Parts: sequence; structure tokens; C-alpha cells
Amino acid sequence: MYRDKIKVLDCTIRDGGLINNHDFDHRFVRAVYKAISEAGVDYMEMGYKNTKRLFSPKEYGAWKFCDDDEIKRIIDGIESDTKISVMVDVDRVDIEDVKPAKESPVDMIRTASYVKDIDKAIYMVNHFAEKGYETTINIMAISRDMGPELDEALRQIEEESKVNVVYIVDSFGALYQEPVEYLVKKARVILKTREVGFHGHNHQQLAFGNTIEAIIHDANYLDGTIYGIGRAAGNCPLELLIGFLKNPKFDIRPILDLISKEFIPLRNKIEWGYIIPYAISGMMNEHPKAAMALRKSEKKENYKEFYESLNSGLD
Amino acid sequence: MYRDKIKVLDCTIRDGGLINNHDFDHRFVRAVYKAISEAGVDYMEMGYKNTKRLFSPKEYGAWKFCDDDEIKRIIDGIESDTKISVMVDVDRVDIEDVKPAKESPVDMIRTASYVKDIDKAIYMVNHFAEKGYETTINIMAISRDMGPELDEALRQIEEESKVNVVYIVDSFGALYQEPVEYLVKKARVILKTREVGFHGHNHQQLAFGNTIEAIIHDANYLDGTIYGIGRAAGNCPLELLIGFLKNPKFDIRPILDLISKEFIPLRNKIEWGYIIPYAISGMMNEHPKAAMALRKSEKKENYKEFYESLNSGLD
Repeated sequence: MYRDKIKVLDCTIRDGGLINNHDFDHRFVRAVYKAISEAGVDYMEMGYKNTKRLFSPKEYGAWKFCDDDEIKRIIDGIESDTKISVMVDVDRVDIEDVKPAKESPVDMIRTASYVKDIDKAIYMVNHFAEKGYETTINIMAISRDMGPELDEALRQIEEESKVNVVYIVDSFGALYQEPVEYLVKKARVILKTREVGFHGHNHQQLAFGNTIEAIIHDANYLDGTIYGIGRAAGNCPLELLIGFLKNPKFDIRPILDLISKEFIPLRNKIEWGYIIPYAISGMMNEHPKAAMALRKSEKKENYKEFYESLNSGLD
Repeated sequence: MYRDKIKVLDCTIRDGGLINNHDFDHRFVRAVYKAISEAGVDYMEMGYKNTKRLFSPKEYGAWKFCDDDEIKRIIDGIESDTKISVMVDVDRVDIEDVKPAKESPVDMIRTASYVKDIDKAIYMVNHFAEKGYETTINIMAISRDMGPELDEALRQIEEESKVNVVYIVDSFGALYQEPVEYLVKKARVILKTREVGFHGHNHQQLAFGNTIEAIIHDANYLDGTIYGIGRAAGNCPLELLIGFLKNPKFDIRPILDLISKEFIPLRNKIEWGYIIPYAISGMMNEHPKAAMALRKSEKKENYKEFYESLNSGLD
């Protein structure tokens, strides 16, 4: 599946950071950056750019804030063509504090937004674009918002924003192939002058399959994480995506090596992947927070009761 | 996704048996049969019906042979509408020893065959059909055999056999959605008077997604296993398939409960699931036997070297 326009973004440290308070150490992040660079992946996302007014550096690691100086320490001395991305959430970033792109190691700023916040997202994105960054809007929890408000949001983005890419984000791991086809086709029709991206979650083991589905319908920006690390069930495994894409610029071997050396040991310390309560959340189109709480309780393996509790919540 | 013609077959004990020499004990198999029955699954496959001339009962458990009396002991006293299936391999069964269906607890015999052995498979299937069994032909390793020989085999099956269902079997976990679409559509065109089935393997986390793809293109017989147990990366997780199909006859809860009680402990004893050497085998359209050997060696986590060794084998 070779298509020159396809760009792969690794969000290992950013989405993986959601399960360890963004507290990956310097050595680990450098090892990831080196492997991603050697593999020829187009972008690497380092974390969130949150304001320290809302989140304390005592509670969170460096990748909750992504200070330019921290990023510079990571990339220093490593040969790379990989661009650097950071994510911002609506209402959680001081946009005035973001330096112009030419003074920053960051190439792209991705704004995560629900459909309801799209006006704010457009305002932010236009601000970042004026500062010289590549920009994306990542529409979160889209499986809960597939009606006319989504159409309106996409039209607004096309008409009012300077954004480069709009991502469909299956935050709840609830989408099957047919909804992915529906959403990507819809986005391609409305967003005539933008690229479309896809970010899957793996609650139902569909993150990779849905990413392929998005590729088939002409999404060109694709997210993955090494060994699928990420919140709850995690994301589309980058190694599978690289294995599928036949673009000769990619080399899977540095990723495989890093999984052996870093991610197998890490998986023994923190949990992600195919775990039944996350699968249930996906089936029911629910945020995984109830399942995440369950996994920290004594009832972590009590799947039937959890299923029934989510069902009864629908009364 | 409700379609009345869809039938789900659980092959937990049969495909799972490939990783424990078919040696599940009586209590465990009864627990699976009870849960499968309560869940409303259409078929449960107990194992292989191999001749004891080729395989020793000292080396293998009961589900390598599937004697009628063993099956009767499992199902005795459990209320169930679930039909019983067994699998046979070409050249490994004494077909004359198979009793007429009305004297047996078995409802369906599935014949596993490579494309090259299709004449033998048709002979066997016709024999079983004459004895009153429902029959299938499961075309194994189909990702290696997608050319004109497959077309010819499908035409022969349509013209010469009494088979009810022909399964596309992605033995190597190598198929992506587009080849699944191609194969199911081809089978539907040639097999005008038969049903089409799909059996996925999960090497690249695509068993469930590919099963959905097969459903979209009108495959009506679908295999799954509880918690995805099966050789190497395992199979399509039955719980995900039941969660996707909206047929009110299914109840996912007994499956969830059984995973909690039996399959989480079992997974700590025997290995299956998303494991990088199996993913590599899938990407390279290879039988997982090299990866299975690796997993039993000291180099079990040496993924990069394994990848390179498979690649060099292609010289």
C-alpha cells in the first residue's frame, strides 16, 4: 500500500503518557526518538503542551508540558528527518506562551477538540498557523457525535480555519469499519482543501484494521504507537502499520528492536492492551474511565458484573 | 449487524488444543460447552477426529481424537441448542470409522484442506454428507494460494461436492481487508449454492476486523474462540464477535464470566495472543512455526534478529 502522501505520526510518548502521568524519563524518550528517526517515521509527538497554571509539575512529568528546552534536550545530537509534534487541549494551554515556530523545535501543533468546542479549536489553530506551525484538529470521541453537528463543524473548519489536517479520533474504540468509511468519506467531501487523518483506539482490537480502512478511503495522516501503548487498550501498533505500508522510506527494524529492549519490560510495569473491560467499553461506546477505575480495584477481573453495571447505567 | 443466516462457531477447544496437545480436561471442556450453550452460539467444535494409527493417545489428549463417547460425557445433562462440530484433516482420519450421524453426538464435520488436496477433501466430504452430517471444507493457508488453482478448486467444490459451507481460512494471519473482500466475493460468485465462512488468525490483530469484512461481503459462517485462544496469535475473539453481532439470540455474559474464571488463569500457563514474532510471520505471509520455535528458545524476545532471519530466507 504505497501512497506518497501518507504520513505516519508516532504518539508513543504522548498517548502512552496518559497511563504514567507523562513521566517517561529522558533516556527512554531519547531511545524512542532515535528509533522513530531511524525507522523513517514522519512525525513524533512528545506530549501535551498544558499550562502549569492548571497542572502541577510536581504531579506530572515533563511531557505534560513539553517545554521547548526539554524537547531540545531529547533531540540533541540525534540525526533525524522526523518532525516534532505536540498536542494541545482546548482551554488547557496558554496560547500566548507558544513561541513562533522558527524559534521552537516543534514543527506541528495538534489541537484536540470535541465537536462542541470546534469554534475554540479553530481560533487556536489559526493562532498557531500564524506563528508558523503545521496544524491539525483532532476531533475526539467522534463515535458519539456523528450527526449534523459534526457536518457543521467540518464545514466551519473548511471555511474558517487555516488547519492542514483534520483527524477522526475514535477515542472510545467504538468504531467498526463501516462507520470509519462513513466518517472518512464525509470528511473528504466537506474538507476539500485539507488532509484527513485517523487515530484509532484498540479497545476492540480494531485500531489497526480501522486505520487500514481509513487509508482505503484516502486518509493520509495516520497515528500509531510502539507496541500499541496508550490509554486503556492503547492505539494502533506502529509496527503493524509500518509493516502494512510498503513505502520504502520506512524501516521496521529499529522499532522491533526497541520493543524487545524497552517495551516488553515496560509492559510488565504498566498495563495497556486487550483487556476485557476496555473491550466492553468499546462495544458500548463509552469512555474507558469506568473500566480504568475497575482495573485499579479488587474487582478488576469481574467482567460480567462490570458489563451489567454499564448496561444498567443506560436505564 | 443482524442477519438471520449468520452462524457462529466456537472452536476454542479445537484451535486452542493446538497449543496444549488437545489436552483440556473434562471439567474445563464442560465449562466451555455450558457457557457456549448459554451464550446461544450455534456450533462448538470439540477438536480433531484423527486416527490413532497416526497419533498416540499417550502423547495427545482426548480432543485430538474426539471419540463419540468422550463428547457424550461432555454434553451429558447440559441443556443446549448448540450443535457439535469436529474437524478432520485430509489423510489423517479413518473415514470408515465415522459412524452415521444419527448414531453420533456430532452434527457437523469440517474438513480442513489445502487447495492442492481439494480432490481428497471433496471425496471425504461427500462420504460424511452421505452419512448424514452437515459438512464444510476449510481451505487453509489461502493467503498463499489466491491464484487460478483456487478458482479451479472452488469450481470443483461447487460442481462435485455435497458440502454446505466453504471456509476461507487465513492460517498465517496474513490477510488485510482488501484480500478478504476479494476472496469472499470470489467465493460467493463461484459457490452459487453454498454458504461461505471465514476463519481468521490474529497475528496482525486483524482476525476480528477481517471477520467483520467477511460479514460485510456476505460470509455467513464465522469462527471465533473465547479470549482469542488458538495457535500462535490465536483467533477472532468470540466475545468481540458476539458483541458486534446484534442478533438477540446471543448473550455475551456467560462468555465474559468464563474468561474471568478460566481463561485469565489459563493465559498465565500457556501463551497466545499479540506477540511480535507472530506479527512478523503474518506480515511476511509465513507459517508461524518458526515463530513458535523462537518462543520456546532463549531468543524469544529477539525480534529484530528473527525478522532478519525470515527475510534472509527469501533469498
